[in-house]
Amino acid sequence: MTTVRYCINGKLVNGIAPTNRGFAYGDGIFRTMRLINGALQDWPLHYQTLVADCGKIQIVCPSAELILQEFKHLMASVEDPTFTSAIVKIIITRGDGARGYAPPAICEPSRVLILSDLPVYPPDIYRQGVALYSCQTRLAAQPLLAGIKHLNRLENVLARAEQKDPRFFDGLLRDYDDHVIEAVSGNLFVCKAGEIMTPTLERCGVAGVMRQKVLDWYKTHAQAVVSKDLVMGDLFTADGVVIVNSVYGVLQVTQIDDQAIANNDWAQQLRSDLAYVIH
Amino acid sequence: MTTVRYCINGKLVNGIAPTNRGFAYGDGIFRTMRLINGALQDWPLHYQTLVADCGKIQIVCPSAELILQEFKHLMASVEDPTFTSAIVKIIITRGDGARGYAPPAICEPSRVLILSDLPVYPPDIYRQGVALYSCQTRLAAQPLLAGIKHLNRLENVLARAEQKDPRFFDGLLRDYDDHVIEAVSGNLFVCKAGEIMTPTLERCGVAGVMRQKVLDWYKTHAQAVVSKDLVMGDLFTADGVVIVNSVYGVLQVTQIDDQAIANNDWAQQLRSDLAYVIH
Repeated sequence: MTTVRYCINGKLVNGIAPTNRGFAYGDGIFRTMRLINGALQDWPLHYQTLVADCGKIQIVCPSAELILQEFKHLMASVEDPTFTSAIVKIIITRGDGARGYAPPAICEPSRVLILSDLPVYPPDIYRQGVALYSCQTRLAAQPLLAGIKHLNRLENVLARAEQKDPRFFDGLLRDYDDHVIEAVSGNLFVCKAGEIMTPTLERCGVAGVMRQKVLDWYKTHAQAVVSKDLVMGDLFTADGVVIVNSVYGVLQVTQIDDQAIANNDWAQQLRSDLAYVIH
Repeated sequence: MTTVRYCINGKLVNGIAPTNRGFAYGDGIFRTMRLINGALQDWPLHYQTLVADCGKIQIVCPSAELILQEFKHLMASVEDPTFTSAIVKIIITRGDGARGYAPPAICEPSRVLILSDLPVYPPDIYRQGVALYSCQTRLAAQPLLAGIKHLNRLENVLARAEQKDPRFFDGLLRDYDDHVIEAVSGNLFVCKAGEIMTPTLERCGVAGVMRQKVLDWYKTHAQAVVSKDLVMGDLFTADGVVIVNSVYGVLQVTQIDDQAIANNDWAQQLRSDLAYVIH
């Protein structure tokens, strides 16, 4: 498959109404996940997060049954039977609406499923780790929307547009108080003197499903992970820093701008702990 | 006309690609204006603002010629020759894109034109003024996006969804430092002891075209308007407060929550000064 395929509200069409509130106002949420050997990776956790994020902006998330039925419909449209690995993006919006910000009294949330090829990463990112640039773009503090993977992502777009040097894999985002929050497309964990830390996402940032998986793994193994305010100095003096998301899994951060970051091979260990399959 | 009509990239279709960055990330901007007797009200100012807003998020705005040509194409599709008054919404997005926040190296910005009926307001809002509720939702401080009418409007959606009582016309938005910024769908001017003030939009808020018209009118008439930090107390002790936008024009605010606001008939004067036609 080289073309992207869509399923919009159960139909294999390529068109969203311009009055859809997802388009008009970014009034919706999304998740991106991997399809491996025909199975949606971590679907229960992704669906649970879709429901939680929808709830935070007062959207009633469509049922898992409906989404999975529409996903099957989308997969059935792919002629190639060997096509069983892909990236699946699921977008839920408040649905169609009239002019104006007020949500309609009655609206049916829209489901948009997008199927695309797995990205091809250079194998070096798993073997050697990645470099991040520190973004000039800062994240605004908005506790009402913090943690939610909503469709208002202009900050991420501006931060990603800053990249001029291809040796950087992603950008590192801070808030206006110089706290490190996340990578543009992933979450961050820091290990220092045996303590595992991750930035608090109470004021801004996106709480990713892979972040949750890492938190759950450590909890299951009775190891504490502290959510707290972190600054750049914490990363420079760390024993190891990793970034995580549902597509690339876990990557070791070995450089920020021109500064080397200590490499304790934590990413490799975490990928093994989480049984992350490098495709 | 009772149905909404669209023109998307020059075609009279009702479908935006789910990969359009306006849908995926709210990566675009918009303006809403009135069509009166077949003419787009304040088009030069609207177009100038489209260009400026696009520039702030590094989108090259399509030419005025192209947008107007597509608007004519859209108008030509309306069978009713008496249909010459309407609301026109123009959305410009960064265009289609692959997966990921990074803007494509080459992309053609999308133009989306939406034609809909003029709203029917109760005449009372022009004669008696309007009541506003003070929103619990606060605006985040993000200087990089302040003033821009971009597609990341979840704050406005949440603020508007707060309304439970139909006697309120709109909500009043403050930032996290208790500064009054704007109405959910319009800008604010305050008159007190001969001084005309409007909230500064350097940290958040949308700089509307009607706000600019008011600023321009006072400038032309050698009267100062001060952009500054305002708080609720400034409105409660004002001689008059008005809200403005390109659809309803200028409205007197006579009440906030349960508190009466002094009415100096300023809105009526401003509508007359600006030659605003009540449709």
